[in-house]
Amino acid sequence: MQETLAGVLVKLGMSAKRAQICARLFAETTRDGVYTHGINRFPRFVGTIQNGSVDVKAEARRVSGFGALERWDGLRGPGNLNALTAMERAIGLSREHGIGCVALGNTNHWMRAGTYGWQAADAGMIGICWTNTMPNLPPWGGVEPVIGNNPLVLAVPRESGPVVLDMAMSQFSYGTLESYRKKGEMLPVDGGFDEVGNLTRDPGAIENSWRPLPVGYWKGSGLSVVLDMIAAMMTLGKATHELSRDPLFEAGISQMFLAVNPAAFGPAPRAAEIADEIVDSLHVSKPAKEGGKVRYPGEQTLRVRAENEKLGLPVEPAVWEQILTM
Amino acid sequence: MQETLAGVLVKLGMSAKRAQICARLFAETTRDGVYTHGINRFPRFVGTIQNGSVDVKAEARRVSGFGALERWDGLRGPGNLNALTAMERAIGLSREHGIGCVALGNTNHWMRAGTYGWQAADAGMIGICWTNTMPNLPPWGGVEPVIGNNPLVLAVPRESGPVVLDMAMSQFSYGTLESYRKKGEMLPVDGGFDEVGNLTRDPGAIENSWRPLPVGYWKGSGLSVVLDMIAAMMTLGKATHELSRDPLFEAGISQMFLAVNPAAFGPAPRAAEIADEIVDSLHVSKPAKEGGKVRYPGEQTLRVRAENEKLGLPVEPAVWEQILTM
Repeated sequence: MQETLAGVLVKLGMSAKRAQICARLFAETTRDGVYTHGINRFPRFVGTIQNGSVDVKAEARRVSGFGALERWDGLRGPGNLNALTAMERAIGLSREHGIGCVALGNTNHWMRAGTYGWQAADAGMIGICWTNTMPNLPPWGGVEPVIGNNPLVLAVPRESGPVVLDMAMSQFSYGTLESYRKKGEMLPVDGGFDEVGNLTRDPGAIENSWRPLPVGYWKGSGLSVVLDMIAAMMTLGKATHELSRDPLFEAGISQMFLAVNPAAFGPAPRAAEIADEIVDSLHVSKPAKEGGKVRYPGEQTLRVRAENEKLGLPVEPAVWEQILTM
Repeated sequence: MQETLAGVLVKLGMSAKRAQICARLFAETTRDGVYTHGINRFPRFVGTIQNGSVDVKAEARRVSGFGALERWDGLRGPGNLNALTAMERAIGLSREHGIGCVALGNTNHWMRAGTYGWQAADAGMIGICWTNTMPNLPPWGGVEPVIGNNPLVLAVPRESGPVVLDMAMSQFSYGTLESYRKKGEMLPVDGGFDEVGNLTRDPGAIENSWRPLPVGYWKGSGLSVVLDMIAAMMTLGKATHELSRDPLFEAGISQMFLAVNPAAFGPAPRAAEIADEIVDSLHVSKPAKEGGKVRYPGEQTLRVRAENEKLGLPVEPAVWEQILTM
């Protein structure tokens, strides 16, 4: 699968080496069960190369540095490659300074947000990163989509499985709304407003109003604004309100990457125990439903990864056919 | 008011200088309209001094440092003084390294979380900080309160008013539930589960079940877990599940303080413009209710501050009487 995707990217002008990495990130995203941002997303990614939003030849470069903080210009290169480079540099800075931060501007959609959290955790670092997005969410108290669903990632390294939280600032994505509507199901909790402004669990009503809910109503709305503000200020790049509302032209976005080294002061076996004890405290706590289990963020990923590695990666047949013709 | 509170603290053994600062933080919190964590909270704070949870004489000290990252021991001193010291040091580190991070363990309740965001923003820095808390919130999928409402603060400096988000991980605090119940009102949105496990807006039903909702259901639950994990790992301090569920004995908690310098690469007038433009994009966007306005996080604070400075600080008369007898 990776070879097939890489082949398409090389035809589009990407270097063979970078095409392998970019293709691997797509394949790994599907492998980890994030189907919306893996191979199923590849045709749209190709569309953004073909329309000029993504420059396959551009590589992110450092434009300023001061100690543990750097500013990078993504030069509108492939978003996942740029983000990988930025988190790699933040990890390097955290090795030198205990903490490292890279502000990456003028970049493109990074696909699966959690990728860069896993990257930090796999390198033994705590990773924190976020991106702004095109305006796709109305702020609390407003009806126009002037804020973004700005995904935020926090990741903690852990021997028996990193803890990785990958959360967008909308309670449900449009993809999730569509999937519930097609199944004829209501959402499990309120997901947005209907066209007359009442909270609703009806996915179709929310698709019609274009008013999905921010996570935690006013709280997630505020968090989205501040994440956007920090990313745009530190990159001197574009803020959400300046980005196109057309996903094919959501280009030149702003992202932040932080890495913190839990072993900065020396080997920290106790830190590893602390993480395990927190996980245990969740696992032994009483579930709401009999036979249920309280899980930590990212707990399902290793299971899904193992299952997909064993059984093969699930892909929409139509998408795979489309990719084979590219 | 500050003098009165400082006098009480001196009687309890705090040095005159530190008592003035501690008292100022309480008074400023009330001045800024956060009545739950200002002067009304002072008697409970005194209770934690009297029962030995807070050591008025203890001053936080640095135990490890590596570049831009430091670990401090709060020695169970007054939480607001410790937090002020930690953020001050993070700000200092960010001046030296572009970004600074202080992990403060073995400390106590910092009272108003936003205080340390305002502190960073007033110093021209982006501030990010969070604390863990006693276990007071059931995780998503569970019924026992094994996670905390772990407040998170993000603050951005801005000439015409910092943007400060101060959010706890529960959708409504127990104080808010109580206040709605006493007014005989339903919550504006679902706030938790009733005793049979249905989502409800009935504040009394949630008080009875002890199952308030995390912000954004599964999302805020995950965020609470990861914030706790990072704070406890980096301080090698206590995690939420290890803390007492009695607010008077919620001692020895773990906190993280980050400061990022927007002017690290030189004067950044464009960064200031970017923040203003984002604020403007909210202000000009269409409100959900006629005559309404979309606000940025912290927008009300300067107005409330000015009003309270003009009219005097509102305090519960019974609380003030109690303080005068201390």
